[in-house]
Amino acid sequence: MTKGRMEAFSDGVLAIIITIMVLEMKVPHGTGWTDLKPILPVFISYVLSFVNIAIYWNNHHHMLHAAHKTNGTVLWTNTHLLFWLSLFPFVTAWMGENNFTTTPVALYGFISLMAGIAYYFLAHCLTDLHGRDSSFAKALGSDTKGKLSVIIYAIGIGLCFVHPLIGLALYFLVAAMWFIPDKRFENKD
Amino acid sequence: MTKGRMEAFSDGVLAIIITIMVLEMKVPHGTGWTDLKPILPVFISYVLSFVNIAIYWNNHHHMLHAAHKTNGTVLWTNTHLLFWLSLFPFVTAWMGENNFTTTPVALYGFISLMAGIAYYFLAHCLTDLHGRDSSFAKALGSDTKGKLSVIIYAIGIGLCFVHPLIGLALYFLVAAMWFIPDKRFENKD
Amino acid sequence: MTKGRMEAFSDGVLAIIITIMVLEMKVPHGTGWTDLKPILPVFISYVLSFVNIAIYWNNHHHMLHAAHKTNGTVLWTNTHLLFWLSLFPFVTAWMGENNFTTTPVALYGFISLMAGIAYYFLAHCLTDLHGRDSSFAKALGSDTKGKLSVIIYAIGIGLCFVHPLIGLALYFLVAAMWFIPDKRFENKD
Amino acid sequence: MTKGRMEAFSDGVLAIIITIMVLEMKVPHGTGWTDLKPILPVFISYVLSFVNIAIYWNNHHHMLHAAHKTNGTVLWTNTHLLFWLSLFPFVTAWMGENNFTTTPVALYGFISLMAGIAYYFLAHCLTDLHGRDSSFAKALGSDTKGKLSVIIYAIGIGLCFVHPLIGLALYFLVAAMWFIPDKRFENKD
Repeated sequence: MTKGRMEAFSDGVLAIIITIMVLEMKVPHGTGWTDLKPILPVFISYVLSFVNIAIYWNNHHHMLHAAHKTNGTVLWTNTHLLFWLSLFPFVTAWMGENNFTTTPVALYGFISLMAGIAYYFLAHCLTDLHGRDSSFAKALGSDTKGKLSVIIYAIGIGLCFVHPLIGLALYFLVAAMWFIPDKRFENKD
Repeated sequence: MTKGRMEAFSDGVLAIIITIMVLEMKVPHGTGWTDLKPILPVFISYVLSFVNIAIYWNNHHHMLHAAHKTNGTVLWTNTHLLFWLSLFPFVTAWMGENNFTTTPVALYGFISLMAGIAYYFLAHCLTDLHGRDSSFAKALGSDTKGKLSVIIYAIGIGLCFVHPLIGLALYFLVAAMWFIPDKRFENKD
Repeated sequence: MTKGRMEAFSDGVLAIIITIMVLEMKVPHGTGWTDLKPILPVFISYVLSFVNIAIYWNNHHHMLHAAHKTNGTVLWTNTHLLFWLSLFPFVTAWMGENNFTTTPVALYGFISLMAGIAYYFLAHCLTDLHGRDSSFAKALGSDTKGKLSVIIYAIGIGLCFVHPLIGLALYFLVAAMWFIPDKRFENKD
Repeated sequence: MTKGRMEAFSDGVLAIIITIMVLEMKVPHGTGWTDLKPILPVFISYVLSFVNIAIYWNNHHHMLHAAHKTNGTVLWTNTHLLFWLSLFPFVTAWMGENNFTTTPVALYGFISLMAGIAYYFLAHCLTDLHGRDSSFAKALGSDTKGKLSVIIYAIGIGLCFVHPLIGLALYFLVAAMWFIPDKRFENKD
């Protein structure tokens, strides 16, 4: 039951994050197609964040589906993940409104990095709880994609200071990599 | 269980979309009935979008009720549908605030069209998964209304460039057509 | 199951309405107690609407708990109720920001009246579905409070044009009347 | 079932409160790291409120998990708690935007105090309902942390008038104290 309510609360928070981001896409004053042009970077930011939050929901869903139990530490590790994800509307808007300049793109990468680390923590708390020989641990495997995401985000942040679009391209790369749902847990469905 | 959490997440997103749209109806500064007049087009937009999202919730509910299983593709096709629906608050506000001028009404139609296509994709992914001879496929039938909606939206977008109110009238026509809940799935309740 | 998902969707919409209303209470620029004074009417509006939405949630919950089945008509009657309730953030803000002048208070009453009528419709659709001799119909009884609310709101709107505070007082009276949860359905818990 | 829907509604409201607070962190106009500096106090406010709401969710979850029944009084006591929590986005923004000046910090403490009292009421209503010798009452124990929180908040409000940062430090102290999930109820999981 604890697991059920934790899933419900996470679903609620993720559903709200993914939906309120659209409020940051301010309605333009003009009525022509050209008036939409300044919104294009905000829209691209929005698409990236929408996909990112959807990926987190999807992976979170599969991981918790494979889990059999939770405890206080898991609850707080999950809240920690939600905290970093809750900052996505802010960084999405800042990055989009400033047409992908260096600092906002680097901060977007930093929030993505922290969310990636928080997800990694959650996965490992659940592994510790279930035991290293459990079916959960076997389903999770070596979590290569999780580790790789964190590394690519770190590189992406660094490369923002060469050119922000390189950083942005790497963030899209991580999204593309995760886009395929986590086959590891699929057998358990 | 995957189906249950996908329904819960979709319900959450749809509930938030349908509710935050009201935040785009800016409170007027004056205190008379005449001060409400400039809000009237925003209100009409709001009513159309409220009905549209409610129709999607209703049909989505009936369709998933008839479904027995999901997979990764269904999850992503569902997320794709939610993406287009999440843009409704934006296009609703833009169309309403500009008193139904051509471009905003055409864009509203485009988002409606994309949502219609995304719903069609979801229906067909579910049919593929259940098999063409399944009770699900029989319940779905030829999906005439789904195909018709997409066609009317496409015509509506074109006719916006003759007069935007013709496009708007066609969007209302689609809503009226779907307003009646999907009898096809009712026997399964 | 249809009932379960309708409850979940209604809960979601009501939870969002009750929570986003606080966004209309704009943060004052000053930092003293006196800077809160202009917000007082907005706060009073907020309290009234918070209580109203909570009453609807409470009664809706008890009524659906007593219900055994739903159909397409019930789903749409429920959506109709949610539509009027979704306008509460707008009328709450307009009434509060204008310090309870006639037109905004009358409009607040009108939305309350329409929500009351919509609730009455929903109750009667459910009665029709269950049958006039069903345990549901017996639990609902003559629905005196529902009818009385609608009458008091109508009188309140009229008396706004004598003095808006009379109207406001009557809206608070209706809230006080409903504040006590619906004992009729309690035995069914 | 009443308990289930009360949990679902509370989860919804808490998920929305915790998520919409980020909308009060206004996107800065500049694009450098220094442009983030004025947002720092808002961010600190946000972190405190995020942790506070998460604590309430966590404790609320554990307490209701131990509960076996509810009644009308419990429903309204729960709504009363949600009311005070719903004001967190407002006081968080006011405190953050004014860089922790006396009045906003004191008001933040007042809302925290009222939420603490409301939680205490809810705990005691549930104890009354289950009986003083019930397993629920034994699980709740003497509720030392609940009483202590209320006392520290009251002292914190008073000390704001010496220096607001002393008040703020005490609010963080309460959060740190509750951060550890309520072990009392853990055995019941």
